[in-house]
Amino acid sequence: MSASPYKQLEQEFKRLHSFRGALSLLRWDAAVLMPRGSADVRGEQLAALETEYHALLTAPRITRLLDRAHANAQGLTDWQVANLREMRRQRDHAIATPVTLISRLTKAASRAEAHWLEARREGKFELFAPHLEEVVHLVRDKAALLGQALNLAPYDALVDEFSPGVTTADIDAMFKALSRRLPSLIREVIALQDHTPPQPLTGKFPAAKQRALVVEIMKAIGFPFDRGRLDESEHPFTEGVPGDIRITTRFDVNDVFSGLLGALHETGHAMYDLGLPQDWRDQPVGRDRGMALEESQSLLMEMIVCRSRPFVRYVQPLLLKHFGVTGPEWGQENLYTHLTRVRRSLIRVDADEITYPLHIMLRYELEKQLLNGDLAVRDLPEAWNAGMEQRLGIRPGNDVEGCLQDIHWAVGSFGYFPSYALGAVIAAQLYESLRTDVPALDEQLGIGEFSGLLGWLRTHVHGVGAKVAVQDLMKGATGKPVSATPFIRYVEAKYLESVASSAAA
Amino acid sequence: MSASPYKQLEQEFKRLHSFRGALSLLRWDAAVLMPRGSADVRGEQLAALETEYHALLTAPRITRLLDRAHANAQGLTDWQVANLREMRRQRDHAIATPVTLISRLTKAASRAEAHWLEARREGKFELFAPHLEEVVHLVRDKAALLGQALNLAPYDALVDEFSPGVTTADIDAMFKALSRRLPSLIREVIALQDHTPPQPLTGKFPAAKQRALVVEIMKAIGFPFDRGRLDESEHPFTEGVPGDIRITTRFDVNDVFSGLLGALHETGHAMYDLGLPQDWRDQPVGRDRGMALEESQSLLMEMIVCRSRPFVRYVQPLLLKHFGVTGPEWGQENLYTHLTRVRRSLIRVDADEITYPLHIMLRYELEKQLLNGDLAVRDLPEAWNAGMEQRLGIRPGNDVEGCLQDIHWAVGSFGYFPSYALGAVIAAQLYESLRTDVPALDEQLGIGEFSGLLGWLRTHVHGVGAKVAVQDLMKGATGKPVSATPFIRYVEAKYLESVASSAAA
Repeated sequence: MSASPYKQLEQEFKRLHSFRGALSLLRWDAAVLMPRGSADVRGEQLAALETEYHALLTAPRITRLLDRAHANAQGLTDWQVANLREMRRQRDHAIATPVTLISRLTKAASRAEAHWLEARREGKFELFAPHLEEVVHLVRDKAALLGQALNLAPYDALVDEFSPGVTTADIDAMFKALSRRLPSLIREVIALQDHTPPQPLTGKFPAAKQRALVVEIMKAIGFPFDRGRLDESEHPFTEGVPGDIRITTRFDVNDVFSGLLGALHETGHAMYDLGLPQDWRDQPVGRDRGMALEESQSLLMEMIVCRSRPFVRYVQPLLLKHFGVTGPEWGQENLYTHLTRVRRSLIRVDADEITYPLHIMLRYELEKQLLNGDLAVRDLPEAWNAGMEQRLGIRPGNDVEGCLQDIHWAVGSFGYFPSYALGAVIAAQLYESLRTDVPALDEQLGIGEFSGLLGWLRTHVHGVGAKVAVQDLMKGATGKPVSATPFIRYVEAKYLESVASSAAA
Repeated sequence: MSASPYKQLEQEFKRLHSFRGALSLLRWDAAVLMPRGSADVRGEQLAALETEYHALLTAPRITRLLDRAHANAQGLTDWQVANLREMRRQRDHAIATPVTLISRLTKAASRAEAHWLEARREGKFELFAPHLEEVVHLVRDKAALLGQALNLAPYDALVDEFSPGVTTADIDAMFKALSRRLPSLIREVIALQDHTPPQPLTGKFPAAKQRALVVEIMKAIGFPFDRGRLDESEHPFTEGVPGDIRITTRFDVNDVFSGLLGALHETGHAMYDLGLPQDWRDQPVGRDRGMALEESQSLLMEMIVCRSRPFVRYVQPLLLKHFGVTGPEWGQENLYTHLTRVRRSLIRVDADEITYPLHIMLRYELEKQLLNGDLAVRDLPEAWNAGMEQRLGIRPGNDVEGCLQDIHWAVGSFGYFPSYALGAVIAAQLYESLRTDVPALDEQLGIGEFSGLLGWLRTHVHGVGAKVAVQDLMKGATGKPVSATPFIRYVEAKYLESVASSAAA
């Protein structure tokens, strides 16, 4: 007797999971240690596996099995029903975007990326513009097809790929709340911080010592080095699958914090992936719940947990031990001042947590306009600069510090940027509930004890996998759908605390 | 208008080539830096990609295209015709071994490998025996199916997978010639060498310094570090594809030569792969001509070129430079004595080039008997020990030094061992022609100039790819089919030279 349609689907998706793992390793290797001249060969391998993955996922057999499993769903558990829904979701996304379109988009993106790099080197947006235009056209086609198939507006369909169940209305509501408070808050915080500038942390911090420090902290957090690795790459990232998870960071010998914070950000991603439901690890329902949730976990770790006074209490003696540094600038208060410094700056990836959402808001509005045709590619630089001036009160001196700074649009990632702001907002909302449920959290973090933090996250976020949509996951974890209010409460409390109360903490 | 059947096949095999490259990287990573606990996840990924590779290669579409291309072959170039033949060859091998059998064999081999390790730890052959028996049964089935499909005797069909066009008759003729001369030669050489025992090369040779030495020599040979890597692993190996070739070695801080010779052996493989016809790099005809040819290239580099007086002239100053060593034991004559030491020993991988073929001969005869049923698995230890005594005059004290020393049979690699001896014989035959065609070879090698060597190999071996069968490749390169005579001439000249003539060289 043959297996049920549902069980056959599990086998098919187990195989697809293995393909995903193989693709992930190919990307990891390319970024970490592949010889520079081998990019062409690797590109062919990635394309071959991605094409095959797409073909397997959209094969008529999968459609038939999905229909038959759906018709025989009465005996399935709620996890199996959710798994079936996620299988269909993945297949619907794949089938709505034909291989020919994806292939044209991949090639256009590859050209655009090369010209983006050249435009940055030369400081000339016009070298990039025609290639971006081509990408915008193809993404517009993709959004229209996806939207039709999923019964969503085109931009919503793009967002749905990264953050299932999140709509433009949700994002608009979030940004509206943030834009009511953040501009004035930024003014207040900068004025407050101007009274107590940090003492510089000078010196050379060798990469090997930074690595030893990072490994010690990652072990305390619970990163399993027997089933994962920490390496170096130009930009920090997380790849792999649960069972072989790989994060990277970049060590700057002149900066004691950047390598550590990069690694902790990625450790947040890794701990999410490692906490996904083990029984479903090779099935769609066992995956993370999209980019906004992923980003919430990395920002919760890096921005909220690791830029906090309790974490500074834990990490300060480790800094003294690993680097052999002394002096008043290595006191906890000065370290905390460094970690929570707010500045109006031009570059998104260097931004603090209060100004960061404004960077995202600008990109969100511009990318919607690019896609719906309200903004021509040639007018992007001026729109960018005007937007920066309006939102942050500073104007880029050139496009490299302006609309050429991010790679996302060049490679066709439209609908992705909102995930960053959603992630920050979700992180703060989770953190508020977490603090209520785990009253000893600060004491635990102060001694490098992360089990309270991770236990709560595992129960309420990680272990849920992709069983429910983002909004339902948030209702389950915090009692409410995604809202910017906890984020605003969090940044107000953290950044407007008086110097007196902070010294007492 | 659609592409011709032949052109469509090229596209299909280009995709298969990308799968091979991806599989190779997954294996490389597993051996070099994968976290120890991730073997299960990696196993699933390898199985998924291998199964898909097999399915793509044996799809009805490929058969149809092969038939149509064959019927329309009149316009094809000779390379295209050879490519078509190799496509069919790969497909015939794959289709003769159904996925179900391969999957059973893979699982049995995986169990047998685990019990082989345990049997080695415990020194108990009986822990391994039942699992080896299962593997033997399945390999017998595979050989029968392959033999039927290829119209070959079962064992010949296994050999054909590793060394296309080489028959049992060729192998028998080679071993007959070798067994007529080697036993007496070994006696003579050992007696001669007993007069001049080498002075020991003591000291600590840090891995980083060994690596620097190896990299300098690999660069001189022409290894392209912008499209390849050197790493460390438990056993040296070569993986990757031309365009991203990766070799490994193992550094022993107490042994100045083992890491270097391991790397040079693998560099021999790598230079073969790198010299394959670039225009055909993603097609079957652009691949190496099987394991015997591969092994000929690694042995030619390690055993013939790098254990020669000219190479010692080149490498000796490098040893002094990299390790800062001094003393008479670092003189060229003493180094050469170390590199050409002949001993009767129990372990194949440590054997010198004269005793090595006898190790292979034993395995060749035993594996044929295991497969045809003349030898029962339980009688293997005694047959092994008796064979060692008869051939080399020494008897293993236990099975770990005896029939448990190699992994090949555990993992189902029957028909593979002859490649090692064929490789040695082919290497010597190529070298004889090479010396005639490149009279300045010794002077070149003495100053670390490898272009004469590699130019000849590229023209006569590497650049031929898989265009012709092994015997035809050898006729083209040397004027004769594979023969043991040049090997015997080579070892006699090298190992029976009088001390006087060697001092004058």
